[in-house]
Amino acid sequence: MKVGRFLISGKETYGFVKDGKIATKEEIISKTGIPIPLTIKEFLFDGWYSEVISQNPKLDYAVSISDVKILAPIPNPPKIICLAFNYVDHAKEQNLTPPQEPAIVMIPRTTLNGTNSEIVCPSFVKQLDYEVELALVIGKGGKNIPESESLSHIFGYMVFNDVSARDVQAQDKQFGRAKGFDTFAPCGPWITTADEIADPQNLKLRTWINESLRQDSSTSNMFIKIPSIISKISKVMTLEKGDVISTGTPAGVMLNKPNAVFLQDGDKIEMEIEMLGKLENTVKFVP
Amino acid sequence: MKVGRFLISGKETYGFVKDGKIATKEEIISKTGIPIPLTIKEFLFDGWYSEVISQNPKLDYAVSISDVKILAPIPNPPKIICLAFNYVDHAKEQNLTPPQEPAIVMIPRTTLNGTNSEIVCPSFVKQLDYEVELALVIGKGGKNIPESESLSHIFGYMVFNDVSARDVQAQDKQFGRAKGFDTFAPCGPWITTADEIADPQNLKLRTWINESLRQDSSTSNMFIKIPSIISKISKVMTLEKGDVISTGTPAGVMLNKPNAVFLQDGDKIEMEIEMLGKLENTVKFVP
Repeated sequence: MKVGRFLISGKETYGFVKDGKIATKEEIISKTGIPIPLTIKEFLFDGWYSEVISQNPKLDYAVSISDVKILAPIPNPPKIICLAFNYVDHAKEQNLTPPQEPAIVMIPRTTLNGTNSEIVCPSFVKQLDYEVELALVIGKGGKNIPESESLSHIFGYMVFNDVSARDVQAQDKQFGRAKGFDTFAPCGPWITTADEIADPQNLKLRTWINESLRQDSSTSNMFIKIPSIISKISKVMTLEKGDVISTGTPAGVMLNKPNAVFLQDGDKIEMEIEMLGKLENTVKFVP
Repeated sequence: MKVGRFLISGKETYGFVKDGKIATKEEIISKTGIPIPLTIKEFLFDGWYSEVISQNPKLDYAVSISDVKILAPIPNPPKIICLAFNYVDHAKEQNLTPPQEPAIVMIPRTTLNGTNSEIVCPSFVKQLDYEVELALVIGKGGKNIPESESLSHIFGYMVFNDVSARDVQAQDKQFGRAKGFDTFAPCGPWITTADEIADPQNLKLRTWINESLRQDSSTSNMFIKIPSIISKISKVMTLEKGDVISTGTPAGVMLNKPNAVFLQDGDKIEMEIEMLGKLENTVKFVP
């Protein structure tokens, strides 16, 4: 399934997405009689989703996706964990060896953003850059998760843009501020459940800036692979349902490039991962 | 006031602390008739605290603090933001110039820990270190907060131990994993409300390891001062009620010291900040 969060006539809801149409929470309740909860986080992770799916309901998908505003799928993940330098091709362009253990940067929920929204950047940032990434949505928490069990902890996948202020990053050394600006984490457009993705380690991921292709790689180029990412992070911190882990970006970003052209006001960013959909965002600089 | 969270006979509650005694939520409800909510976060930040205080209730403080387990004051802050290298004396011992802008590292809520608890460290960590810090608890959120208004956004203060795995930190460069282990953020022992602290920029803070004094400084040695910290961070991310900002550690940690003696299994850590109380934790290494 594809599960997303939406604003319809100013009212927040969530639901399933299929072929450009939405079966909203309200439709799911009316068709199944199951009193699914107010928030998508409770729906997905507290048993309601499974209950609805087990009923295999006939749904009309009555709302057109073009009539709604798509929101970041989960507004309040307990953690948002970003990996640095985890693609072989990106590490190579940076003259780095990818680290054996995940180098993580946590960012706040206030960074979250949906598709078809603006990435709003204060004008003191001079080097704004993009990073297409495959994000994992954790469905079942745990500590010290063995690699062999890692995939069972994933509820689904999304596209994630780990927007980064490279000048801030260079100044601070730590990346928390550079990646921590409000709106710097467009994700979605919805969550695609894990059962739909036969091999998450073999998905094309691409970025276009103003329709020019900039990143064109595959999740096969990840250095630490998904089962190991989950296992290694869970040796450090307890994973919780709803946590988002963004697994690093491939080659093609502007970081440390000679003659880098960083993002400008009005630039259009499109990011697509095979099977997961496309994010489209516009850059807006503000005083 | 001093407001804390407690486990009493296995049941979680919160309340006021005075002279080693607690007025629990249950006592506050019974004495005031105000139906204060289940969670301390709602109590503090959704208007209930002010309502109780405005009644100036006579409370018995019927429970002795020695009969309870003290928990981290807030279990689920929206953000926990740690500053790196923000004390003049610490930067000097590291041969660094303190950064002009806050170098921030975010850590997850799963790091939180109370006083009189174990800091549990996997044995793959070889260089475990301590950091006494003054933590701010944000009571009123905001974006682009002017320095002149910063202090009005602080609900209170706590002692914070920003426990760090220095070998992990050196390996990753990014500090997210090194500071992100479960139990690595003892804080409290309770929140002391801002009205009790005349000058937060002039508080002694000290650390003892096995009763030997290791850190002995003052919040006057902060490089970026509290109003500026809040203002600068809020230029990047929207602050939310309940956010915790830990303002950096002074000199006296083991990082990069010749002949450093890192924390060992069984070590006792005591940290005290004037007016705010004392954290006492024991180090426990696990396989």
